[in-house]
Amino acid sequence: MIGIFDSGVGGMTVARAIEHICPGYPLIYFGDIARTPYGSKSPETIIEYSKRNTDFLLNHGATVIVIACNSAASTASDALRSHYTVPVLDVITPATRKAAAVTRNKRIGVIGTRATVRSKVYTKGIQAINADCTVISQACPLLVPLVEEGWLNKRETKMILRRYLHPLKRRQIDTLVLGCTHYPLLSTLIQPRIGKRVQLIDSSVEVARYLKEFLDNTPDINNKLLKQKMDSRFFVSDSTAPVRQLADRIFGRTIHLEKVDA
Amino acid sequence: MIGIFDSGVGGMTVARAIEHICPGYPLIYFGDIARTPYGSKSPETIIEYSKRNTDFLLNHGATVIVIACNSAASTASDALRSHYTVPVLDVITPATRKAAAVTRNKRIGVIGTRATVRSKVYTKGIQAINADCTVISQACPLLVPLVEEGWLNKRETKMILRRYLHPLKRRQIDTLVLGCTHYPLLSTLIQPRIGKRVQLIDSSVEVARYLKEFLDNTPDINNKLLKQKMDSRFFVSDSTAPVRQLADRIFGRTIHLEKVDA
Repeated sequence: MIGIFDSGVGGMTVARAIEHICPGYPLIYFGDIARTPYGSKSPETIIEYSKRNTDFLLNHGATVIVIACNSAASTASDALRSHYTVPVLDVITPATRKAAAVTRNKRIGVIGTRATVRSKVYTKGIQAINADCTVISQACPLLVPLVEEGWLNKRETKMILRRYLHPLKRRQIDTLVLGCTHYPLLSTLIQPRIGKRVQLIDSSVEVARYLKEFLDNTPDINNKLLKQKMDSRFFVSDSTAPVRQLADRIFGRTIHLEKVDA
Repeated sequence: MIGIFDSGVGGMTVARAIEHICPGYPLIYFGDIARTPYGSKSPETIIEYSKRNTDFLLNHGATVIVIACNSAASTASDALRSHYTVPVLDVITPATRKAAAVTRNKRIGVIGTRATVRSKVYTKGIQAINADCTVISQACPLLVPLVEEGWLNKRETKMILRRYLHPLKRRQIDTLVLGCTHYPLLSTLIQPRIGKRVQLIDSSVEVARYLKEFLDNTPDINNKLLKQKMDSRFFVSDSTAPVRQLADRIFGRTIHLEKVDA
């Protein structure tokens, strides 16, 4: 199975993108709702939780791991890759490749949680591909709670977005990476505020495209996965009504969340 | 020692109030930053974490427990009292007594996290004292992230407060319980928006007053505590820069936070 983990429910935008772009593969998702959010936690804590999540997915039959949480991907990718032998894909690398490929003026904006921005992982990733790129990052810690409250069209959300996006607009970026899996739900608010000429890069879609490419290139894993005739499963370490609503909204259908012990 | 626990750093408003109102007693604080916030978690998860926190405080010499987290107090007080033999005080009961005592028109507002409001614990507590009181509750889930970001004087915070307080104002309350330990940091914004005639009840101050009364009335525990010549200690399950800044802001001095394993 394709194992996907996130600190919460936002990573389901990755699961949804994988469903669309890699249809026919069974998914196993783990959302660590009991410990969400990771974005404000220390690196040591994020690494510990990421290992627990990976163990859970491997024990339930995952053969590929996708880190669908930007905070975990920015902080724990190296630790996981050195600790496990299965392939570990992260939600960050594909978006950096895409951003570096599509920018024309070499000025790229990145928005994310505090942990993601502090790690400078997008900046380093983009500049490793093209050292001429200038990357301007902005931490947007209030966007996750706003999305989780379902305030997707409220005036306050628009004002807070304008405040966060203003410094990026002033620096005349032409490409903006949505460096958090919750942000695609705000993309219709982000586009007019950052400017219609700025290309938005959705890290959830990019990692799904990257996974498709990876599977096409590794036939042994691909064949093993395609032989597994299992249904996709969605596990969470805690389940509340707003979480279930957000999951259903992301998928556009009712998602059965299985609660496991925290 | 007086043991105090909270889901995070907000409960330090309780520790500060106890320092002021019960000077000379050694405090031991545990803030479960690694798992914050509790307000959006399920009852089972909140009870499990509250037991872990109480065990930690007891193992470090606490002889009285103060639940400084409204979400934990509303959900786990009964479970802790039936599980442990030490006195367990909670941040809710004293505020309900105070609100019922000071209201003139018997219309009391309560603001808190989703978990606190869902539990109806303030409503039940106030109406157990005076069945004539009408209690109007409002969940304000975005206030904790706004305080933790330090957005204490931003226009968006004021707008969000106005949105949350509007239904309470319309119902003509004369008393408003700040049912979350983060909210005292917003009281100067709340007072003009709810109206200057509305009396604010600070649950942190009320539990400290209640503790003073409790200690005066239980000389054996009181004498034991006063003999302990120990310094107060502040433990957290995770430590980040914004947490340390908020702790210092609450106390008005530098607080040494000791990180323990999550």
